[in-house]
Amino acid sequence: MPIYETISKPTLLIDKRICQQNINWMANKAKSQNVIFRPHFKTHQSAKVAEWFRQAGVTQITVSSLGMAAYFAKHNWSDITVAFPVNLREIQLINQLAEKINLGLLVEDISVIQTLDKLLTTSIQVWLKIDVGYHRTGLNWEDQPTIATCAFAVQQSKNLKFMGLLTHGGNNYHTPKNQIPMLFKESISRMNVVKESLMQNGMDQILISVGDTPGCSLSDSFAGADEIRPGNFVYFDGQQYVMGICTFEQIAVSVACPIVALHPERNEVVIYGGGIHLSKDSIQQGQLKHFGFVTRPDQNKWGSLMPGAYVKSLSQEHGVLHLPDSAITSAKIGDILCIIPAHSCMTANLLGRGITTDREQISMYRYGDC
Amino acid sequence: MPIYETISKPTLLIDKRICQQNINWMANKAKSQNVIFRPHFKTHQSAKVAEWFRQAGVTQITVSSLGMAAYFAKHNWSDITVAFPVNLREIQLINQLAEKINLGLLVEDISVIQTLDKLLTTSIQVWLKIDVGYHRTGLNWEDQPTIATCAFAVQQSKNLKFMGLLTHGGNNYHTPKNQIPMLFKESISRMNVVKESLMQNGMDQILISVGDTPGCSLSDSFAGADEIRPGNFVYFDGQQYVMGICTFEQIAVSVACPIVALHPERNEVVIYGGGIHLSKDSIQQGQLKHFGFVTRPDQNKWGSLMPGAYVKSLSQEHGVLHLPDSAITSAKIGDILCIIPAHSCMTANLLGRGITTDREQISMYRYGDC
Repeated sequence: MPIYETISKPTLLIDKRICQQNINWMANKAKSQNVIFRPHFKTHQSAKVAEWFRQAGVTQITVSSLGMAAYFAKHNWSDITVAFPVNLREIQLINQLAEKINLGLLVEDISVIQTLDKLLTTSIQVWLKIDVGYHRTGLNWEDQPTIATCAFAVQQSKNLKFMGLLTHGGNNYHTPKNQIPMLFKESISRMNVVKESLMQNGMDQILISVGDTPGCSLSDSFAGADEIRPGNFVYFDGQQYVMGICTFEQIAVSVACPIVALHPERNEVVIYGGGIHLSKDSIQQGQLKHFGFVTRPDQNKWGSLMPGAYVKSLSQEHGVLHLPDSAITSAKIGDILCIIPAHSCMTANLLGRGITTDREQISMYRYGDC
Repeated sequence: MPIYETISKPTLLIDKRICQQNINWMANKAKSQNVIFRPHFKTHQSAKVAEWFRQAGVTQITVSSLGMAAYFAKHNWSDITVAFPVNLREIQLINQLAEKINLGLLVEDISVIQTLDKLLTTSIQVWLKIDVGYHRTGLNWEDQPTIATCAFAVQQSKNLKFMGLLTHGGNNYHTPKNQIPMLFKESISRMNVVKESLMQNGMDQILISVGDTPGCSLSDSFAGADEIRPGNFVYFDGQQYVMGICTFEQIAVSVACPIVALHPERNEVVIYGGGIHLSKDSIQQGQLKHFGFVTRPDQNKWGSLMPGAYVKSLSQEHGVLHLPDSAITSAKIGDILCIIPAHSCMTANLLGRGITTDREQISMYRYGDC
């Protein structure tokens, strides 16, 4: 029985072959550049997908919360960086995890470093979070006195092992494709300015960790970095496709959604698939803002991009699709259409589970479970 | 121990007293207007919050999916309308539910009516979904021949019991406050035009079901309607507050989030609380688009609105707050701030559980559980 005959409601489909291609591609890129590959697992949040990374030689990972770290620790991952400013209110979980695994945390505040050192019952690895231009959070790379103060405080602490400097180039998501490699290179170069300044102050063994999917995908060289942490590339999505970071053929997820109503007079169909399945993240495509691309099922996979079709609007459970004339005439209630989501991390998180095109069930970490 | 001392990560706080006030207010409004009160449970999705409705005399409810209907059926609700175009692919669940409860479904297509009648093993209640101007889905109220064809097909079917006409005035969400009662009245009047046309064709016993929170909150009269189905009013939220639908004091939920980083130089703090906790739904406040309001904990509740403070941006786990000078100087890492979410339905769905200001644990339906 084709996979689509078993689907009755919005379902995350994962193409394992494409997924593994993406994983191997990035793993090989890291290997050829001689950097540590510490992929971000917040995109898939799944123990099973994680095994595909393990098969590609990955042993060190990144997650976005302590709860997610606990989930992967339970699934035999023993070297985990939580790429989020340390949340002191979770000190109990930090201590529990640090007993079991090599736990890496991010710090960017002297008082947090001091408090953490006092509250820890075992040692952890810490990275200074550096802001090289994104301005979400982190120590400003130009504020070298404060960075030095924090670095020395870590070095002098009892339980904090200084690993190095870490940044996230989130501004790559707001940069035209052709400027991303340059911006990525500039980020690494700013990180090295900070590193050299610390070395002149007598510190050594300072690793540099960088990485986001646009930067790592488009750059040919990671020179100056010791570690990369991209995440989204495992699935890619509509936003990455529109930015030119991936091809359509590299997108490894879609959401299978049943058609529940037809409105041919306005070139629209309604699917069972809304904001609680796809997320409200959107794609800006020229003047058009929409919530995903549309494809048709094709055997156990999905076919090519349907030209001129997109998710026009989303409410809690309804999705309204705009379809071109050619597609609207053949659409039938009960048919499945596959939606390429705008942002696969948010969509996977909402659906909480998935199925591969080979019919493997994919379970995931869910917020609040750990 | 104050409730906030037990909170370590983004947590949905529900003020039970306000919640029950909101429930009683709408229940009394329905009672005084002599209409059936069939509240939409998609906002809270919680068996425990549902009990507060039961205490206010509610026995008939609305949900947005068959999975959610199964959840509430398990919690002893026996009269449930699924306010979503019937999804034929879930016929098995429909039949299971229809064996146990009075199940109401929405139809808007003659072929669906015929297929449903064939596949049903027991009888269900059906409503014709009418579009009175929102244009998301439903039969156009002006297309009375098609509506009549569908109504007669239902009447002649074996397993479909015709209940009446149902609409959702989603366009009330895009209408200035002072025009909402007029638009609500116009919706009901259009529904009555359809009803009269069916009655002239010999049909009788046609109920009219309407309702959305803005329309039901602001209208003094429900004349011409038999049933109302508002949902959001149980919690209200930042969007409803900005629209003028509720006062700040009527908002019954907030999300408690720890501060994890300070950036006083740009009047910002970073909280643990991102798009996977609050959702990416936003509030348009004049020229400013943001993702929620900010308040401070106050005993086991939250205080008044912090003037000039808002959620500036959200990524997966990070929230960046803009705070005024007065608040930025006193903000400390590890402190809790409470966020009034833009859209409480989406936020509650993401968090998947909550806690009342009286410390009751609130569990919820989660997509995929049923």
